[in-house]
Amino acid sequence: MKAWHDECAVMGVWNDSEAAQMAYLGLYAQQHRGQESAGIVALSENGHVAHKGMGLVGDVFSEESLNHLQGLASIGHVRYSTTGESFVTNIQPLTARLFNGPVAIAHNGNIVNSISLRRQLIRDGAIFQGTNDTECVLHLLAKNPSDNLMACMKEVLPQLVGAFSMVVLSHDRLIAARDPYGFRPLVLGERPTKDGGTAFVVASESCAFDLIGAQLIREIEPGEIICISDKGLESSRFAESPRLAKCVFEHVYFARPDSFVFGESVYQSRQRMGEVLSQESGVEADMVIPVPDSGVPASIGYSRKSGIPFELGIIRNHYIGRTFIQPSQSIRSFGVKIKLNPQAHLIKGKRVVVVDDSLVRGTTSQKIIRLVRAAGAKEVHFRLASPPTTGPCFYGVDTPKKSQLIASKMSTEDIRKFIDADTLAYLSIEGMLKAVKGSVDEYCAACFDGKYPTGLFGLDESES
Amino acid sequence: MKAWHDECAVMGVWNDSEAAQMAYLGLYAQQHRGQESAGIVALSENGHVAHKGMGLVGDVFSEESLNHLQGLASIGHVRYSTTGESFVTNIQPLTARLFNGPVAIAHNGNIVNSISLRRQLIRDGAIFQGTNDTECVLHLLAKNPSDNLMACMKEVLPQLVGAFSMVVLSHDRLIAARDPYGFRPLVLGERPTKDGGTAFVVASESCAFDLIGAQLIREIEPGEIICISDKGLESSRFAESPRLAKCVFEHVYFARPDSFVFGESVYQSRQRMGEVLSQESGVEADMVIPVPDSGVPASIGYSRKSGIPFELGIIRNHYIGRTFIQPSQSIRSFGVKIKLNPQAHLIKGKRVVVVDDSLVRGTTSQKIIRLVRAAGAKEVHFRLASPPTTGPCFYGVDTPKKSQLIASKMSTEDIRKFIDADTLAYLSIEGMLKAVKGSVDEYCAACFDGKYPTGLFGLDESES
Amino acid sequence: MKAWHDECAVMGVWNDSEAAQMAYLGLYAQQHRGQESAGIVALSENGHVAHKGMGLVGDVFSEESLNHLQGLASIGHVRYSTTGESFVTNIQPLTARLFNGPVAIAHNGNIVNSISLRRQLIRDGAIFQGTNDTECVLHLLAKNPSDNLMACMKEVLPQLVGAFSMVVLSHDRLIAARDPYGFRPLVLGERPTKDGGTAFVVASESCAFDLIGAQLIREIEPGEIICISDKGLESSRFAESPRLAKCVFEHVYFARPDSFVFGESVYQSRQRMGEVLSQESGVEADMVIPVPDSGVPASIGYSRKSGIPFELGIIRNHYIGRTFIQPSQSIRSFGVKIKLNPQAHLIKGKRVVVVDDSLVRGTTSQKIIRLVRAAGAKEVHFRLASPPTTGPCFYGVDTPKKSQLIASKMSTEDIRKFIDADTLAYLSIEGMLKAVKGSVDEYCAACFDGKYPTGLFGLDESES
Amino acid sequence: MKAWHDECAVMGVWNDSEAAQMAYLGLYAQQHRGQESAGIVALSENGHVAHKGMGLVGDVFSEESLNHLQGLASIGHVRYSTTGESFVTNIQPLTARLFNGPVAIAHNGNIVNSISLRRQLIRDGAIFQGTNDTECVLHLLAKNPSDNLMACMKEVLPQLVGAFSMVVLSHDRLIAARDPYGFRPLVLGERPTKDGGTAFVVASESCAFDLIGAQLIREIEPGEIICISDKGLESSRFAESPRLAKCVFEHVYFARPDSFVFGESVYQSRQRMGEVLSQESGVEADMVIPVPDSGVPASIGYSRKSGIPFELGIIRNHYIGRTFIQPSQSIRSFGVKIKLNPQAHLIKGKRVVVVDDSLVRGTTSQKIIRLVRAAGAKEVHFRLASPPTTGPCFYGVDTPKKSQLIASKMSTEDIRKFIDADTLAYLSIEGMLKAVKGSVDEYCAACFDGKYPTGLFGLDESES
Repeated sequence: MKAWHDECAVMGVWNDSEAAQMAYLGLYAQQHRGQESAGIVALSENGHVAHKGMGLVGDVFSEESLNHLQGLASIGHVRYSTTGESFVTNIQPLTARLFNGPVAIAHNGNIVNSISLRRQLIRDGAIFQGTNDTECVLHLLAKNPSDNLMACMKEVLPQLVGAFSMVVLSHDRLIAARDPYGFRPLVLGERPTKDGGTAFVVASESCAFDLIGAQLIREIEPGEIICISDKGLESSRFAESPRLAKCVFEHVYFARPDSFVFGESVYQSRQRMGEVLSQESGVEADMVIPVPDSGVPASIGYSRKSGIPFELGIIRNHYIGRTFIQPSQSIRSFGVKIKLNPQAHLIKGKRVVVVDDSLVRGTTSQKIIRLVRAAGAKEVHFRLASPPTTGPCFYGVDTPKKSQLIASKMSTEDIRKFIDADTLAYLSIEGMLKAVKGSVDEYCAACFDGKYPTGLFGLDESES
Repeated sequence: MKAWHDECAVMGVWNDSEAAQMAYLGLYAQQHRGQESAGIVALSENGHVAHKGMGLVGDVFSEESLNHLQGLASIGHVRYSTTGESFVTNIQPLTARLFNGPVAIAHNGNIVNSISLRRQLIRDGAIFQGTNDTECVLHLLAKNPSDNLMACMKEVLPQLVGAFSMVVLSHDRLIAARDPYGFRPLVLGERPTKDGGTAFVVASESCAFDLIGAQLIREIEPGEIICISDKGLESSRFAESPRLAKCVFEHVYFARPDSFVFGESVYQSRQRMGEVLSQESGVEADMVIPVPDSGVPASIGYSRKSGIPFELGIIRNHYIGRTFIQPSQSIRSFGVKIKLNPQAHLIKGKRVVVVDDSLVRGTTSQKIIRLVRAAGAKEVHFRLASPPTTGPCFYGVDTPKKSQLIASKMSTEDIRKFIDADTLAYLSIEGMLKAVKGSVDEYCAACFDGKYPTGLFGLDESES
Repeated sequence: MKAWHDECAVMGVWNDSEAAQMAYLGLYAQQHRGQESAGIVALSENGHVAHKGMGLVGDVFSEESLNHLQGLASIGHVRYSTTGESFVTNIQPLTARLFNGPVAIAHNGNIVNSISLRRQLIRDGAIFQGTNDTECVLHLLAKNPSDNLMACMKEVLPQLVGAFSMVVLSHDRLIAARDPYGFRPLVLGERPTKDGGTAFVVASESCAFDLIGAQLIREIEPGEIICISDKGLESSRFAESPRLAKCVFEHVYFARPDSFVFGESVYQSRQRMGEVLSQESGVEADMVIPVPDSGVPASIGYSRKSGIPFELGIIRNHYIGRTFIQPSQSIRSFGVKIKLNPQAHLIKGKRVVVVDDSLVRGTTSQKIIRLVRAAGAKEVHFRLASPPTTGPCFYGVDTPKKSQLIASKMSTEDIRKFIDADTLAYLSIEGMLKAVKGSVDEYCAACFDGKYPTGLFGLDESES
Repeated sequence: MKAWHDECAVMGVWNDSEAAQMAYLGLYAQQHRGQESAGIVALSENGHVAHKGMGLVGDVFSEESLNHLQGLASIGHVRYSTTGESFVTNIQPLTARLFNGPVAIAHNGNIVNSISLRRQLIRDGAIFQGTNDTECVLHLLAKNPSDNLMACMKEVLPQLVGAFSMVVLSHDRLIAARDPYGFRPLVLGERPTKDGGTAFVVASESCAFDLIGAQLIREIEPGEIICISDKGLESSRFAESPRLAKCVFEHVYFARPDSFVFGESVYQSRQRMGEVLSQESGVEADMVIPVPDSGVPASIGYSRKSGIPFELGIIRNHYIGRTFIQPSQSIRSFGVKIKLNPQAHLIKGKRVVVVDDSLVRGTTSQKIIRLVRAAGAKEVHFRLASPPTTGPCFYGVDTPKKSQLIASKMSTEDIRKFIDADTLAYLSIEGMLKAVKGSVDEYCAACFDGKYPTGLFGLDESES
């Protein structure tokens, strides 16, 4: 069950006569990373053309608007955030006509020093249109006197602290860069075009490549900047990496199961999380039931390792409209019930292991267990395929405040009582890292262990 | 993968101060049975109030429109059909002010003699507004001189031939009736109300009851008519059943897996179909992969019986907007690819069993297998959890014409070649009936065996 | 200032390859007769095609919808009434597929015995969709066994009592009929077509002909029915006229000034009303000021006959949006002020004659005089170019209830005090008839003299 | 008949608890000056709140959006320009959060050196969002280091060349300024508020004051800047006036007839234009006919001075929807005919003087005369209440290119032949100035005499 939201996904396409179409499809495949807004900027013969809007990719773009986005290169973006008309100016890609030509920019992540950057820029006369951190980058570029965009970028990027996987489109090149910690994924691929050439593509997740028939070449490295132009692809570094800090939550929850993230299959990472969880916290039971859909891969792993049969004991209704209302106050656990329906005839009298990917506030889990018990389960063993989440994220994930994270203030036993499970167990941090085949030096697990890899520039951990 | 569409679902509520709200939720839970339009009629103190519209339940109704639907009783309907403004008049429930008061009516099914009924009614001066068969019933009631609606119904219903699971709301009663063959499901339930009383509810599928916390009492019997009023519930028969003809396709594909249909769990029927399929057509392989989501239960059954591991080898993208466009002609198998993404790293070099619920035209299966082969599968064994579909349905299912049903004109071996599977096997009719625990006398399997239980009144089997 | 509303206008076109386009323009020119809804039915090769909607003609129809309305014949309708989604079924033309083919029908007027007709039709099994009187005519036609539509019409029309100027389109002819009293206008014209032929056109007002370049042939006579088909135009009578009862209010207010109604120019009638008014109720003054726009022609007549200069002393703001709100409660006479602005520098210290077409409730006149006094007028002489309105209309005009007509309960002197004029004078009934060059036997002036030409079938004069 | 468009109107309100409501009404009254977009910014306790949109005032604002615009001060703007989604960023008032607080700005006019200002600002790192000249002012303010907004304004305004009547709202004051030439009007008024205080109001035209019950105090002087704050109203000068250049076209066409502009009644100026025209170019005729509505005041003056009767010989249809389409190519002069209908019965056989305010391209006048001749006029004498327009405007009026101004390339006699009038006469420049009681030193008549009061900074006179 979803409670955390990743901020964004990006897409870039170079040398494809259907550049905007490919961006559209790439964003579509990455829709899970942002449902608030979508935008594409294409590089036409007459300069940048843009189409942006609030809503899902399929709703924002029409055949007409895509046809309008002519050109051989494009960048695109989907975004998650709070809604509201006043935030239309925040829809990325952002564009501006700088002294040396047009620039469009989009990124996934969060720049932790953006407030102080913004303050200084306003003092120098900059006029901001929106509230997002990307606009700082645009102003930093605008103020930079150099004629050479790559040189500009290399001066500007080191001023940014935090997480950014960025694509930039000028009048003659596509640039992609990833922060030195490598918080968010960013992958490079190529695709044969209709006319026999090769297009380069950049995306947040590799699943974007599958849809458009592109091949994954490699990850863009932390601290690397890539410049793609008619002269081909050039790679260089804009900063050394003090350490790596790849976001482990991409594997736990965010990324699509069919993506390769940080070089590993997300689906298999999740299965292994279930396997390790089973080894760490096994229990005697009659069936393993996933909380659909996010708990399914871990459940399969748990079932396989434990030998307890896997059953779709809770059926998910996929016809959830965006504007669904709660018409009656008399139905308990309504919000969960509208999506999830336990199958009483399967569960009745049984000892069940219910597996979910993570537990944030605890209220949803409480309702799920209540429904499972109402369906007649004899015992309910709740298993989480990740450790207790104790802190907010400052690197591009929209998490609840620390005070709303149940594990930040309750013991596991108290949480067990709160959600009314017979037993409750989390995956250990070590188990999680083992499942993603990574080490504590390479991954950011700050939401689990409180070790933030960068300074926070006054951002208040307890108030995020 | 969906290719057949059930026409409708109905809902009825009696003696609930949130009658329209319960109908709304009941329709919402049955949304899979009809996404074209939705409507609710409530019985307020001032007579019938209606709200209807094209689109999904969540889009048609707002808090405001539901609040407008005051009253202690209601009926509702969702419908699948072709779209178009001109069909607004077809949205059910239909309403009319007859001589003896207002009547609203909705049904699921198809009345096979409606064309000849309509012709005679127009000859007698009736003015039709739409094109659906329900309107015939309304005119037959309007022309009936009796003061007593139940008496009217008992005269009118025997004139109808075909499938109908019907709800009718007058100024003082809720009537529910099911055709003598029992083609479509229709269930009766009860629900404790906020003020301590008991509400009666009627629905096409039991999953509607789960959401609103109602208990399933029983199926309404073929040929039975139920009248619910302030005097309670009365049951009687309006016709004898020449034979039973419950639609086996409800178990194969239509119904939600968490419903009980004709007394059996749909989820378990489908698991058993997979088990029997495994026994009938076993093969050596490395993994069993469902075509999501409809092939999942049968795959679990197949895996369990065969011992071959179950894997989500094909990932479904659930963010399919209603208006998605195909922006590029250069992507092969686009329509399938946008929804389904095989996981190459899992499949590569493996012998896979791909399980789907049914095969209609063959083109989708062909594309799926093409994607699975492109992902590197060594062998692809395609298994269908139902028999070859050889004929159209005339009883409320929107099927392709006979000429478009690949099994009506090709042998299984030719189909195998067409879809390019290494092996292809269907479930046998006997196996299917065994899985639903039914006999050939109780079920209609006309789409598989061509044995239509009723006369067809000139409807052309090959041109449906 | 508008306070009464005519119900409708009709349009019919025969033998014009742009039949729907001509109906569109004809309705557009007659928009003043109905702003609630608009509709056109065209006779295409595949039968009737219709497009209807709530709103103004220019908003209801698009280039696309007009292109969809192919065919050589059409009828159209605009309507005034109260608004509301539930009344979509009332939008004319109404259409039905009768036993002998499709029929579309539209009329202007009001059938006073429609309630009793409707009651009997429902008793006989008819199902009504809306609440308007036109639907009765459709059901009467549906129940009529004859094969011949003209024969049907001649049997049905004599059953109708009241005002109706009607157009009917079948699969092979255009029929136009006017009630025996001739309450509402209905004119016949012809128009050379693009391909060298001649099209017949029918409209409520002749201004519709001007726009499309058609020539007025003549009025359709009271009691006359005209049938236009490929065989040409045939005229006959369906009933004798007990007396004529042409609506004098068409000349006073409703009709466009550039129309010829009942054979006279509306603009000149209104000028003559102003002239007679000046003769009947002259006064010494410095200027004559119209209440724009409806009082302008009478003001010109008044000025010309009296020799007192005509001035646009009140300026009308024509940018009145449909959704204008009153944002402040602190502005007196807001509703009038938003439309009308007196020019203080012209009026200050002057004796002014303010001329309006009629006075209904008195509240608007009161506000206008208040504004004129606030602008500094020394004396305000209010003149009405029609007699006191004392009764409601039952023949197609949406008038206030009798109790809201100020002249039904107050003397002229009391009204003068209420509106705070220095003097107040109405045109006499004789003066009005003289201005329209008519006699009391030819015209219905029931709203002024209470003499209703037909029985009222239980309609309550005081409660209209 | 409208062919020229004024760019804008502004509104400012200080110390009124209904500040946004008053701005709304003031914009509504000035709707004729701009129908493309509308916007209001209010100064609430939490800073600036804005609501802006494409369309008419009545459509852009709802009760909800006005309620959202809380605060005691506001500024507003309506704008005319070409349409298009991409221009949403051009809707005024523009707002920005500068270093010293929020600023909102709106102006009426055109800054002729804005292109060079913009170029320099971009070179210095400014990022522009739209294309309008107001944004330059915002950036100039942003770059100004002073803490004092009035000091900033006095430094920035002298850098602007051209026409600007401007309102600015900060966090604690309302500023109004008018360019040193005084091209566009700008008036100051006051209004008693609900709570017994006095509100200051600023508007482009005085008709805005009439609607809200405000009193006109005086014009804001050319070169004057006014600052209204809690300390009261302070006036000072930011620049000397090299000469005055009040736009004479405001009196000829733009302003509402009920406004006082540059100290004179527009209605009376226009009447005097008609009178002088009659004296300069009298002709024997039977009636004087205005082209409605813009030709009416001059026609009254012409009739009065000449003694020839005034008749509404051309009736205007006021129901022109915004989306009206031309459905038929077979109707000559369609565009004019849809709005104007000559009354043949009045005109037939008569010698008519047709009076319009101005003649731009000549095509509309040609069509009008064609219609009048078709209605049977014996002679058509066309009279224009302004001189020949020979050049474009660069000071805030959207005129056609010079090459489209018929008087820039044809003699009056050739124009007469082109429009097919029996005689054609324009008002002389001297006559026009006499009618507005002004001299050639005070007024800009550049569109008539080619004498542009300012440098044009490379704007090409022939390509405007």
